[in-house]
Amino acid sequence: MAEQRNADEIFKEFKEHSIAEFFKKNRQMLGYSGMVRSLVTVVHEYVTNSFDATEEAHILPDIEVEITQIGDSKYKVKVSDNGPGIPKKFIGKALATILAGTKFHRYVQQRGQQGIGAAGCTLFSQITTGKPILAQSGTGKESYACELSIDTMKNIPIVKNLVDVDQKFKGLSIVGEFADVKYENSDHGVYEYLKRTALSNPHSQIKFKDPEGKEYVFMRSVKEMPQKSRPIQPHPLGLSVNDILEFAHSSQSRKISSFLVETFARTTSNKVSELKEIAKTVDFDKSPKELNWTEAEELIKAIRAIRWIAPDASSIIPIGESRIKLALKNILNPEFMNVVERKPCVFRGGVPFVVEAAVAYGGNSGKKEENGYSGTILRFANRVPLLFDASSCAISKSINEIDWKRYNIDMETQPVSIFVNVSSVYIPYSGVGKEAISQETEIIDEIKLAVMEAARGVQRYVRGKEQVAFNANRYKAIARYVKQLSSDIGDLTGSDKRGIETKLDKIITKHFPKMKDENEEKYENSNEEEKDETAD
Amino acid sequence: MAEQRNADEIFKEFKEHSIAEFFKKNRQMLGYSGMVRSLVTVVHEYVTNSFDATEEAHILPDIEVEITQIGDSKYKVKVSDNGPGIPKKFIGKALATILAGTKFHRYVQQRGQQGIGAAGCTLFSQITTGKPILAQSGTGKESYACELSIDTMKNIPIVKNLVDVDQKFKGLSIVGEFADVKYENSDHGVYEYLKRTALSNPHSQIKFKDPEGKEYVFMRSVKEMPQKSRPIQPHPLGLSVNDILEFAHSSQSRKISSFLVETFARTTSNKVSELKEIAKTVDFDKSPKELNWTEAEELIKAIRAIRWIAPDASSIIPIGESRIKLALKNILNPEFMNVVERKPCVFRGGVPFVVEAAVAYGGNSGKKEENGYSGTILRFANRVPLLFDASSCAISKSINEIDWKRYNIDMETQPVSIFVNVSSVYIPYSGVGKEAISQETEIIDEIKLAVMEAARGVQRYVRGKEQVAFNANRYKAIARYVKQLSSDIGDLTGSDKRGIETKLDKIITKHFPKMKDENEEKYENSNEEEKDETAD
Repeated sequence: MAEQRNADEIFKEFKEHSIAEFFKKNRQMLGYSGMVRSLVTVVHEYVTNSFDATEEAHILPDIEVEITQIGDSKYKVKVSDNGPGIPKKFIGKALATILAGTKFHRYVQQRGQQGIGAAGCTLFSQITTGKPILAQSGTGKESYACELSIDTMKNIPIVKNLVDVDQKFKGLSIVGEFADVKYENSDHGVYEYLKRTALSNPHSQIKFKDPEGKEYVFMRSVKEMPQKSRPIQPHPLGLSVNDILEFAHSSQSRKISSFLVETFARTTSNKVSELKEIAKTVDFDKSPKELNWTEAEELIKAIRAIRWIAPDASSIIPIGESRIKLALKNILNPEFMNVVERKPCVFRGGVPFVVEAAVAYGGNSGKKEENGYSGTILRFANRVPLLFDASSCAISKSINEIDWKRYNIDMETQPVSIFVNVSSVYIPYSGVGKEAISQETEIIDEIKLAVMEAARGVQRYVRGKEQVAFNANRYKAIARYVKQLSSDIGDLTGSDKRGIETKLDKIITKHFPKMKDENEEKYENSNEEEKDETAD
Repeated sequence: MAEQRNADEIFKEFKEHSIAEFFKKNRQMLGYSGMVRSLVTVVHEYVTNSFDATEEAHILPDIEVEITQIGDSKYKVKVSDNGPGIPKKFIGKALATILAGTKFHRYVQQRGQQGIGAAGCTLFSQITTGKPILAQSGTGKESYACELSIDTMKNIPIVKNLVDVDQKFKGLSIVGEFADVKYENSDHGVYEYLKRTALSNPHSQIKFKDPEGKEYVFMRSVKEMPQKSRPIQPHPLGLSVNDILEFAHSSQSRKISSFLVETFARTTSNKVSELKEIAKTVDFDKSPKELNWTEAEELIKAIRAIRWIAPDASSIIPIGESRIKLALKNILNPEFMNVVERKPCVFRGGVPFVVEAAVAYGGNSGKKEENGYSGTILRFANRVPLLFDASSCAISKSINEIDWKRYNIDMETQPVSIFVNVSSVYIPYSGVGKEAISQETEIIDEIKLAVMEAARGVQRYVRGKEQVAFNANRYKAIARYVKQLSSDIGDLTGSDKRGIETKLDKIITKHFPKMKDENEEKYENSNEEEKDETAD
């Protein structure tokens, strides 16, 4: 039987652990669960960083990904970009320290947020193959290469074999070896990930060489950089008591009144006067450093009691309707599509976001199944494709809650792709792995509206197509009788049979305009697709 | 237009962040998303710690939870236990440092694993109410109280107003104030959480006072402590190359051969001889500290090539069939139940786990709906109820994949509760919030087998009950005609009508034994339930 143990005995084992140790033990939380997903996670982390870096430096991204199989469940991944590179003195921390980076405290729309991704790859390589990551970087001032790993007990980088290289290479190139991974050509594989990345980033060019040596190029379809997202001032309605306190305590402003105007969006001195009317116990003339919790609570209550202009939309850079169209055409080449860009919205009171949605029909939309097609959902957050954890994502939930019959769309049998991109300075991911958007009511409602609006456009097309097909059949049926009818009427009346036929033909053509030609041309050709539509 | 920026400019903003800052920004990852869930998360973290502490100290747990509303979306939570307490010098780190604790590096079955939970509550209180946590503890040697908060920039504790108290109180009592939370009496609320905790911990007594002042007691139904889980040696089949290297490098053994025998389960010197046969390039006589990656890889290959005895089951302490029965009776009081405890199994090659499943029918099983009932799934991991993220959990997935019609069970209309507890030294949670078990194939298969086995037992009962109900109806129908028939036969034959009736009665009773009495007694009374069963 076990004995009683007292607190002192139990706490002999008390220890602190580094975040690197934590994720080493719980790597599934970083997206390293399942062999296929783990490989996509590696590519995703590097490619995401390349996009953020090129955007930051205002360079049109050229990204190359190469995957080589080097053993059983063991692959080499190389990702190179033409970005600004990483200064030598930061390379260790940037790629081999978890929770270090340039993006964490900024209030700006970016793909990466947390300073976990690339260091997570280094950790994953290390614990599955024992190998360091090889990095080569050129910043224009310096060009060098080195090997990187993490001292996980301390979460500090180990940089080895650092050498200056002579090359003119600018950007960042990373080579890593990973085990417990698998390349698969599926909906959840690297190829699909890159294809979707190209779809949401038409200004990029992505080259990919798969383990069989096949090369793919997703061509740039837009030559202009997307508008650059700027750090913005937080909107008062998005603040918690704790937020306003932290801003106040680190503020350089002299008075609370000027602190409010200088720190937050849409906050004019008029607004401050309104706040003073309500938060009467707060001394707006004292230093913001002296603001305490009770006063901050007063302030927040006052903020929520008055009317505000909505957050500045310019901070959010959606892809844009015309770019989405170009990208969809480039990659899915659909028969028909409808793209909707909604106005900026706000969740949790003050965090602005924008939803873009598209419904594409035909071409390479949807997924080819054994007996026809099925619909596909293409989820994106700040242009980054989300391939996993669909069941817990706000985008899937919104789409599944739509009554698709109302739009003549059947996700189970039709070649339909539904594209949704949510852009925000703060995407509320449901996990560290950032594969799903948490199900905030405002986001779900807005996605639904966007997708339904996009679907309405396609509905007209699908219904039109059905109508055309229906009319074509009727025209055919009637036309078949015209000859017989003209002959019969001719016999009965003794009139000219050909004259009657011409007249009847005219009458029918009036009812089914253009049907005669198109019937032969278009709709005979598209037979296959029509079959698929009615396959259920 | 935005300008190009070079690497030096971009990396001016490079910073490191503490794990506390990270979770402050991403509190949804700790389970603090949604007001109802956030409150449950607080209770869950404290109660889980109380269970681990009492178990560690071998004390039958008495736990008290009290929730008081103190404002709009603002509640005070008090959780007290009769555990071993926390030594004064550890109180700060234990409750106000993220990733510190006694459990992280142990290979033993426990509820908590990561040293995040309680410090996460402190963080959550701090950022929603600005208040510290009040802790009082008595270890038998010292009794004290103090206020705790976290310096989030550094992830270090701030201990204030530490005073020795005179009381004889032994254990730990924590009071915290939390905003952005809501008490709700639903399937996902605190009451349900505690009820389920009592269900999986029949050796505990849990008192609960809800915000309306109502008091509940979940009584102890078993007076013996559960068998204590011991730290175990890892099984060779569960090791990765990296694992074996880390064990080797921190080993005190003189040779690799003795290191293997001393460190891992089921590893005899005979087994080591077998390994030597295969891993020929490894020098088993050298110090384990000198083992390199290539040799470790060799060793792992050899380990996977030979046969091993399954991992030691004694490390895993399931609840036990009889205890589950007592608890289910105590709390659900079902008409019928079937409990199954499966043999230990292994996932990822060498991590042992045990699945227990029960299907309970009638009584307070299932959920009362407006027009009848629906089935309920009670998910547990190491006896801790899982209330959220059902859609991504291995337990829900397994249960949903079962063809319930085969078991005469209809989860949509019947008063059925399905109980599943997965026990392991390492539960592969899918997120930091620990609300779902990741969908490992071996775990899913084993849960399915367990639930199907449990369902088979109940199937006989449900089918029997349906048969009985069916027979009862037939008996009633026939009995109704006996009187008329006897009378008619009497008229036709001139025989004694009462005699004929008695004889007919006997014949019927032979076909439907006991039906006559029960019909009046049991099945007339259980009309309501029968209606519910056929309500679909």
